[in-house]
Amino acid sequence: MNVADAARLSDREFIDWLHAAGGGDYHDRHPFHQLMHGGRLTKRQLQEWVRNRYYYQTRLPLKDALIVAKSDDRHFRRQWITRIHLQDGFDEDKGGLALWLRLAEGVGLDPQEVETCGRVLPGVRAACDRYVTLVRDFTLLEAVALSLTELFAPRLMAARLEAWETHYPWVDATTLGYFRARVTQARVDSEVALTFVTRHAETFELQSRCIQALKTKNEILWTLLDHVHAAYVEGTDDDR
Amino acid sequence: MNVADAARLSDREFIDWLHAAGGGDYHDRHPFHQLMHGGRLTKRQLQEWVRNRYYYQTRLPLKDALIVAKSDDRHFRRQWITRIHLQDGFDEDKGGLALWLRLAEGVGLDPQEVETCGRVLPGVRAACDRYVTLVRDFTLLEAVALSLTELFAPRLMAARLEAWETHYPWVDATTLGYFRARVTQARVDSEVALTFVTRHAETFELQSRCIQALKTKNEILWTLLDHVHAAYVEGTDDDR
Repeated sequence: MNVADAARLSDREFIDWLHAAGGGDYHDRHPFHQLMHGGRLTKRQLQEWVRNRYYYQTRLPLKDALIVAKSDDRHFRRQWITRIHLQDGFDEDKGGLALWLRLAEGVGLDPQEVETCGRVLPGVRAACDRYVTLVRDFTLLEAVALSLTELFAPRLMAARLEAWETHYPWVDATTLGYFRARVTQARVDSEVALTFVTRHAETFELQSRCIQALKTKNEILWTLLDHVHAAYVEGTDDDR
Repeated sequence: MNVADAARLSDREFIDWLHAAGGGDYHDRHPFHQLMHGGRLTKRQLQEWVRNRYYYQTRLPLKDALIVAKSDDRHFRRQWITRIHLQDGFDEDKGGLALWLRLAEGVGLDPQEVETCGRVLPGVRAACDRYVTLVRDFTLLEAVALSLTELFAPRLMAARLEAWETHYPWVDATTLGYFRARVTQARVDSEVALTFVTRHAETFELQSRCIQALKTKNEILWTLLDHVHAAYVEGTDDDR
């Protein structure tokens, strides 16, 4: 029996599968995150993570706009477009990108320099660009499924907040707003995405594609950290 | 001397060129619009225009989301995204698409049937889809330039409003809200687009590409009317 003939899983079974398949490979288990949460990163290593991860943040509104452009349903668009506003902000000083630049300042970087993305590692750039390309080329269903890593974000954000406040007291705690906001917002966002994929993955084959999309997204997040780890933990950068 | 060597026009000269090159071919001169504004369309012909043009309206949020996805500048995105909201609405009953469906009701069509786009002419569908494809494949500058037909929309909307109120008194005048809103909104929108293209068309070659994009857009709008005209004015549709 091939995948096209398999019976569709119930919504409950499908959701359990997403949790099992996506949670196991989520990047909270990456060695770099283990070092971060154990308080074993140097200031420079933490800074370089913030700098490189900013590039990922800048890709989010672009991939979300591509998702909006894929939907013929204005009700869906109206819901999904709020993600762009959350990242770009409704005015100059708010929004996820501005919060991340405050975080950059909090770890001692020049936020204007970070914003140029001029010192992002090529491998990080490639991984993040791959995410946008996948969203562009995928069906709406798969593009939404890519975002399901958010299911596991609240636990990571909560762990990160605790670790940073404990181990990196030199980081201005008022600049951790992005992480705080995500604990709640990732729950709301992932609920919307989960409702969408359970409704639209109408066959086992489509359910399987959602699982595959989620695993691919985990791979992208993992790869991003691989590059930061290789350059600033294993690397020979004298300044680390 | 080829186009790459020609000197960049001043902003004033470039804007004059856009007006001259775009205004001449704008679809207000199309025979179908001449019939419409002269009060010479039958009820059925007016209905079919409303029905077919709705498909064009549905493509606008998609192409605007593609434009948002092309920009690395969150200030630009924040400005352009308002177009999506204007068309989709912030809540269920507002926005350009909802206003157009009210118009459909005003001319005696079933708005739910119109919303399915099930009876859109294949040629109209192809012309509108071409617009989205061009936006997808063009640079940000050219994609924005495609929208510059809005420069000429206020005069068309004003003429249309007057014509409809004079010649088609059977249309419920309270359903003409889309046209009324566009008289003002098209001025605001085209000003934003014009500021963007004058700033970013930094060479004569780029200025020329903007002109070409505007002319292509005029062609799309003209083709849409060609198909409606061929089917419902020249056509042999017994019910016209």
